[in-house]
Amino acid sequence: MSQNPLRQQRLLPSHGWGLAAIYFGGWLGSAAMRLDSQTTMPRYASVREMEVAIAEIRREITKSDGVEGGEDIISTDPEDLLAHGYSEWSTTNPDGLPVAVAYPRSTEQVSTLVRVCHAHRVPVIPYSGGTSLEGNFSAPYGGISVDFAYMDRIIQFNKDDMDIVVQPSIGWQDLNDQLAAMDSGLFFPIDPGPSAKIGGMIGTNCSGTNAVKYGTMKDWVINLTVVLADGTVIKTRRRPRKSSAGYNLNSLFVGSEGTLGLVTEATLKLTVVPEELSVAVVTFPTIRDAASAAAEVMQTGIPVAAMEIMDEVQMRVVNLGGATSPRVWKEMPTLFFKFAGTKASVSENIQNVAKITGRNRGSNFEFAKDAREQKLLWSARKESLWSMLALRKAGEEVWSTDVAVPFSRLADIIEVSKKEMDDLGLFASILGHIGDGNFHESIIYNRADVDERAKVETCVKNMVQRALDMEGTCTGEHSVGWGKKDSLLLEVGPATLGVMKAIKTALDPHWILNPGKIFDRQYLA
Amino acid sequence: MSQNPLRQQRLLPSHGWGLAAIYFGGWLGSAAMRLDSQTTMPRYASVREMEVAIAEIRREITKSDGVEGGEDIISTDPEDLLAHGYSEWSTTNPDGLPVAVAYPRSTEQVSTLVRVCHAHRVPVIPYSGGTSLEGNFSAPYGGISVDFAYMDRIIQFNKDDMDIVVQPSIGWQDLNDQLAAMDSGLFFPIDPGPSAKIGGMIGTNCSGTNAVKYGTMKDWVINLTVVLADGTVIKTRRRPRKSSAGYNLNSLFVGSEGTLGLVTEATLKLTVVPEELSVAVVTFPTIRDAASAAAEVMQTGIPVAAMEIMDEVQMRVVNLGGATSPRVWKEMPTLFFKFAGTKASVSENIQNVAKITGRNRGSNFEFAKDAREQKLLWSARKESLWSMLALRKAGEEVWSTDVAVPFSRLADIIEVSKKEMDDLGLFASILGHIGDGNFHESIIYNRADVDERAKVETCVKNMVQRALDMEGTCTGEHSVGWGKKDSLLLEVGPATLGVMKAIKTALDPHWILNPGKIFDRQYLA
Repeated sequence: MSQNPLRQQRLLPSHGWGLAAIYFGGWLGSAAMRLDSQTTMPRYASVREMEVAIAEIRREITKSDGVEGGEDIISTDPEDLLAHGYSEWSTTNPDGLPVAVAYPRSTEQVSTLVRVCHAHRVPVIPYSGGTSLEGNFSAPYGGISVDFAYMDRIIQFNKDDMDIVVQPSIGWQDLNDQLAAMDSGLFFPIDPGPSAKIGGMIGTNCSGTNAVKYGTMKDWVINLTVVLADGTVIKTRRRPRKSSAGYNLNSLFVGSEGTLGLVTEATLKLTVVPEELSVAVVTFPTIRDAASAAAEVMQTGIPVAAMEIMDEVQMRVVNLGGATSPRVWKEMPTLFFKFAGTKASVSENIQNVAKITGRNRGSNFEFAKDAREQKLLWSARKESLWSMLALRKAGEEVWSTDVAVPFSRLADIIEVSKKEMDDLGLFASILGHIGDGNFHESIIYNRADVDERAKVETCVKNMVQRALDMEGTCTGEHSVGWGKKDSLLLEVGPATLGVMKAIKTALDPHWILNPGKIFDRQYLA
Repeated sequence: MSQNPLRQQRLLPSHGWGLAAIYFGGWLGSAAMRLDSQTTMPRYASVREMEVAIAEIRREITKSDGVEGGEDIISTDPEDLLAHGYSEWSTTNPDGLPVAVAYPRSTEQVSTLVRVCHAHRVPVIPYSGGTSLEGNFSAPYGGISVDFAYMDRIIQFNKDDMDIVVQPSIGWQDLNDQLAAMDSGLFFPIDPGPSAKIGGMIGTNCSGTNAVKYGTMKDWVINLTVVLADGTVIKTRRRPRKSSAGYNLNSLFVGSEGTLGLVTEATLKLTVVPEELSVAVVTFPTIRDAASAAAEVMQTGIPVAAMEIMDEVQMRVVNLGGATSPRVWKEMPTLFFKFAGTKASVSENIQNVAKITGRNRGSNFEFAKDAREQKLLWSARKESLWSMLALRKAGEEVWSTDVAVPFSRLADIIEVSKKEMDDLGLFASILGHIGDGNFHESIIYNRADVDERAKVETCVKNMVQRALDMEGTCTGEHSVGWGKKDSLLLEVGPATLGVMKAIKTALDPHWILNPGKIFDRQYLA
């Protein structure tokens, strides 16, 4: 794991925010943000300088927007700081918290804030849903967390063009609820964790169960309004669905985790709600059989809307969680399928998939019997992380991480990774977007138990190395954040990382935007 | 139009290469490549310095690879230079030709060449199919054209993972022929002009008729091997189909027209050949009726494999071209549909589309009656540019350009643009990828007729401005090249262009890679 040079070897609070004030006090006491200029670390403002910058931001925004938009947009409440710098479901939490949380109401306010931070070398960390898993919104060097909570609206809906302009803090589920309420017949198909919001979804290039049919976040962005590191506001493109005009800045900002700019508006493609939807479940004697069936579905080109794998442990977690009660699922390796399209095509696809799963020792092929059960079943899948979190005993944490491999290798990596966890006596479940070769491992462990934590870290490190050895990636959809910087370096090597960092330096010369994420400056080639 | 500062006001040869030696001689005589360092133009090597660099490349490659790989890889034959610096189907051809054409056999040779060129400030211009339309491979500042003709192989085929590793000079049609010959059941779906090759397809982020179903080039790239401006070789990723690990360098290099690096290898996704294919044609009384029908097809979510519009002029061109002889098509605005999938879904889609076109005053809904007619019909569409070229009389040229708009605006822009051309007495046809809001205008004109050329330029300029006013883009799939630099600036504005140029400067500080394309250095913010 990458080490924060300011690391204080102090355990973080594991549950609740009761320790917020103490923790925050501890951090403030240690603040030595002005780093030695002889290292290649960026030199950030001291806490005192950050306070000067905050006062300046307040002044500037009050001046231009009046009191309503000014004095109130910045909070230094300790609980607010903890909520924006620490995550109980993240694999890692570096020491450090933001010194303030800003709640801007407009692109102009974000621009003012970033411009002042640029001048004072104050880190700026974007925040929307707060559901990321790799310390993506942590504040290892202090600075200002920019929470887009008040920028959560639909700005413009272009129904005929099947696109929509939104602010960063609208959630994907809320967006779809609003589209349904308008009876638009359209929806936005990217489906990460339930509480994720568009801003963070852009930052992490997220995806979800629908990716096998609809792709990932980058495939649904038409243009972005971005506040650059010096406060300049740009728009990546106008509103064509397709373009070859110049560099593809959409795909550069998508997945850059706020390290190149803060997205304040996005135009997203929408697609047509399918006429018919169906969900089916099949069990298999082994993960390998399930993976073989899934590979055959892909190689036959059957257009499934989603295809998920869950191991026997994860099925047990679903039963224990009780979300589909009174229905109890077989605790065996299981494939979940979603089918979408016209009635005729859905029926045809189901028949073809049933044949393939049958050939691969699948049994108990069955459907959710109605729309309610469909929804429960799918939500059981979507809520899997929260189900795991709910199983924690006092003092326990969940380590949830993801990798992706070419899909012919998925059975291999799952088998070996499961065996390693079992051998170490860890309680761990596996589920995956098998059509994308992407899977998640969730491990329950006691953070205070140094040996157990070491075992988990070893398991995760080995799994990532295995994925890389199989020509895969250290993260299919969670992104790098603070937690997987070493893995990214292993994955792409210093020269490719050097290209990324050259781009970072070109667009953010003082490295104020979400510092400590994706890579550290000292690796600069 | 952007002006080459070295412009000599000399007419380019319009047909054939008979003038090659004269033209090349003229260029050499004027070569003043060392520009005034007080301007912000990059300072490139003089012709003499380029010759020194070429000798050095020859020496280095001979030393490492022996005579076979060395002495032969660089040509200075005048016809070769003309063929690599001038295009008879491009909208613009700047003055200037490369001083040499290199034919590397390996990534290592490309790396050596670029490293030496970097040291000597010699422009390097990648070349593969040579079918681009906006002067993309022209050599306004001399330098070395790198023709990948000898790097045209499949390196590795991962059938189970449905991906393939190829070199840049394999054509997409050749790739698909080889996949068919291997009975793989797989194909690569991006279908630009028939002779396009993977390298240039990556450079321009091309697409084609299949884009409405399969997306554009950027959606099919898993990783790239790229030689950077200083000769460093990087690989953007390993081989996962999905990743959130670090910046999306694939999508940055795709569409960057060789200005950020030379692609020497690409891993591409493949997809399953559909079980059933069908092609249908419907005529409409007006372009607006055809556009309305197409919009309804999109808004209903019918998964057509392609949906193309051709105006009455383009239909006449098809008839005149004789490719589908003896069949003669109605010379009316026409929609072409391609359907792909299972037998049942194709049949269902056809019925749904027939209903929609009927509602929108479509008539003569009919199918290509067999596979041969399907192929002819579709190739008539694909060959449309060449059909136009075949209609030229002595001294005539074809100006073929593209724009894209949100698809609700397509009928508006086509109607106005057609009227303007008709009013000016120009012979022009329109065809488009209507599902993407992308269309092409091809105009026949006499280059020597200064008035006529001015009319064409005005028409194109107005059409681009109209597209931008409708929130569109100056190019949906042809890319910017030399010809549309001013349009790109109008489209995105100086701040967004500044971001692109900051990235360019970070990765290619001497601007040696395909200089003069996409943007000019003097606009740097």
